[in-house]
Amino acid sequence: MKSLIEMGKDALKAKREAAILTTEDKNRLLSDCARALRNNCEKILSANAVDLENGRKAELKPSLMDRLTLSKDRIFSMAEGLEQIAELPDPIGQFENMKTLPNGLIVGQKRVPMGVIGIIYEARPNVTSDAFGLCIKAGSAVILRGGKEAINSNRAVVEVFKSVMSEAGIDENTVQLVEDTSRESANIMMKMNGYIDVLIPRGGAGLIQSVVQNSTVPVIETGVGNCHVFADESADIDMAVNIIVNAKAQRPGVCNAAETFLVHRNIAEKLLPVAASALREKGVEIRGDERVQKIVPDVKPATEEDWATEYLDYILAVKVVDSIDEAIKHIAKYSTGHSECIVSQNYANTQRFLNEIDSAAVYVNASTRFTDGNEFGFGAEIGISTQKLHARGPMGLKELTTTKYVIYGNGQIRK
Amino acid sequence: MKSLIEMGKDALKAKREAAILTTEDKNRLLSDCARALRNNCEKILSANAVDLENGRKAELKPSLMDRLTLSKDRIFSMAEGLEQIAELPDPIGQFENMKTLPNGLIVGQKRVPMGVIGIIYEARPNVTSDAFGLCIKAGSAVILRGGKEAINSNRAVVEVFKSVMSEAGIDENTVQLVEDTSRESANIMMKMNGYIDVLIPRGGAGLIQSVVQNSTVPVIETGVGNCHVFADESADIDMAVNIIVNAKAQRPGVCNAAETFLVHRNIAEKLLPVAASALREKGVEIRGDERVQKIVPDVKPATEEDWATEYLDYILAVKVVDSIDEAIKHIAKYSTGHSECIVSQNYANTQRFLNEIDSAAVYVNASTRFTDGNEFGFGAEIGISTQKLHARGPMGLKELTTTKYVIYGNGQIRK
Repeated sequence: MKSLIEMGKDALKAKREAAILTTEDKNRLLSDCARALRNNCEKILSANAVDLENGRKAELKPSLMDRLTLSKDRIFSMAEGLEQIAELPDPIGQFENMKTLPNGLIVGQKRVPMGVIGIIYEARPNVTSDAFGLCIKAGSAVILRGGKEAINSNRAVVEVFKSVMSEAGIDENTVQLVEDTSRESANIMMKMNGYIDVLIPRGGAGLIQSVVQNSTVPVIETGVGNCHVFADESADIDMAVNIIVNAKAQRPGVCNAAETFLVHRNIAEKLLPVAASALREKGVEIRGDERVQKIVPDVKPATEEDWATEYLDYILAVKVVDSIDEAIKHIAKYSTGHSECIVSQNYANTQRFLNEIDSAAVYVNASTRFTDGNEFGFGAEIGISTQKLHARGPMGLKELTTTKYVIYGNGQIRK
Repeated sequence: MKSLIEMGKDALKAKREAAILTTEDKNRLLSDCARALRNNCEKILSANAVDLENGRKAELKPSLMDRLTLSKDRIFSMAEGLEQIAELPDPIGQFENMKTLPNGLIVGQKRVPMGVIGIIYEARPNVTSDAFGLCIKAGSAVILRGGKEAINSNRAVVEVFKSVMSEAGIDENTVQLVEDTSRESANIMMKMNGYIDVLIPRGGAGLIQSVVQNSTVPVIETGVGNCHVFADESADIDMAVNIIVNAKAQRPGVCNAAETFLVHRNIAEKLLPVAASALREKGVEIRGDERVQKIVPDVKPATEEDWATEYLDYILAVKVVDSIDEAIKHIAKYSTGHSECIVSQNYANTQRFLNEIDSAAVYVNASTRFTDGNEFGFGAEIGISTQKLHARGPMGLKELTTTKYVIYGNGQIRK
């Protein structure tokens, strides 16, 4: 088995080639890989069957087994994903802020690849394909370190890509899969400064925190989402109900789903019964503070822990607040900085909420579920950043690149 | 003495106020602080005298004593620095990429403050004033942790700022100075996730590496510069001499000064004698490889270590290379990714150099000394980033800010 440092060295070589691939080269490679995924469907499914068998033996949770499971449909949609990435505009080589200085120097920023991108992720084989596609289009080499549960599926997918690259005469080390799926291999990756330019963890809160806490390689933190919807006193009742039902129940297992519903006391008696019944119709369990319990029957009491929890499930914490100030304070205390929404017809309050809420995406009168690269029109995303450096919110291709200054002179020296 | 966690809590309060200061408020504060620096010149000089006396007792190196020393002129230029920051356009509140989606959602990025910025720096009291000015203008609260050698000077400067803020009714905790200058206090700051949004180390390579290696708070790495000038075979001799003399000797103690001069073998015999004599006239010691030693008399041999050293002094490593390929390889191996220059009249070679050199600033026919916020027209800089995330190259006000997505809806939910 190749050591991680050897992989790092090979990536350093491969990144130089990856950086100078033309847009046409990259798009052709992505289309060829998409076709090869479809053609090798059976092979990938057999590898996946081994992972699933091991998963059953290890008694993995049903939700984990579901994420691990590939099907012809899922493989075809991985292929489609690559084709969509091929259609996106290429950020590499674009110039920004080019200008001529008074001394005649021409200075500007050129968008260039990161170099080597490391991805640490869990048991979803589709991440292997998505991350590969985005990193390649962004002109970088990529080192993928997926979860041990998916190792056979990941290996099969990466082998398909490598054989396409080999035929196209592109360095196969542009994509490398870490075969050692021990905790130790992730720890080594986190210290590979000089080999890996940026590390992106994709998965649950535990994985992300471990990478943020231990990595000396720069990290882009992707999203844990304890998202809030606040219904102000002037909220349109129907709109508030539609938005909280959508934000909670349209797809509860994702980071942009709402976890807490804050309701202004002056609208609570009108809004809460309607909202509760619409939510319960979708199978949502409501956990409320004392005032909620008085208005809605059979509500489980919400504890301090509930305000801080990202359920990722059909559970919603609900609290009645006295004012927009209390709502803003509550969010400042418990939010993970992902997405928050105010439902309100009061202009001044919507402006305050937009200004004072310190999250990656702040909404007026729309579901938090829109925080997504596709929905925002980027075409594809590598994750949603809840940190403030480099990228905040959905990260598309551009966020996987960097810039360098280029300076054209004719002999200028500094006075 | 206030604990760092208490300081962090106070900064969290102060940042909310700092974020909503108008551009006018911030500019007035900066001008008032500039005036107060001038008015309190004597007081600051007395405090500085204590640091200098302690420095003499501790037998600090002359270069360190020089950086520590304040004078009326230096204090006045700190004041001017604040006035220049007041004149810069305010990045906060600008909108980028605002658009209406097909579903009617209006989505865009609003430029907003980081929140709390931490600066860890060494014995230069002027950093206290510069960093304060930039962070305030960028709408953030700032926690300053300077070196122990400058603690009295730093305290005097910060007290001046605090008294201006207090008169203006602005939270004094918008700027806080860490009184505990032990190594431990820096280590605590590096783990203050949740309080400090970004940490910027300013100082020598040791300090910067320690912060990069130990911080769990996101870091912007500022520049160690092992910068290269490469004279290609087609270089204009006079231009090459002017550029290397300027890049090395105009101010050798800064990160954008050149440390290694690479010379194409076909131009070496003509160029090196002229360059060596011009460099020696400026007091530069030349360390050369064997081929350089054959052409230039009395050259000290360059060792492997020389290629990797940022001298920050009147010393230059010189090497004859066989080709642009060898030059590019040498730079890839030894560069710290700061600034590199090719002197050449060959179009294809200048293009290759611009494309293949992976540094923050890549020059054709101009001195590396231009890598500077002021020279690039940003008006002020907090440092030069040699990393690839968030900011690369000179970092101005904009790089001290972040964005958030704001979304205006009218009831949209996700399908």
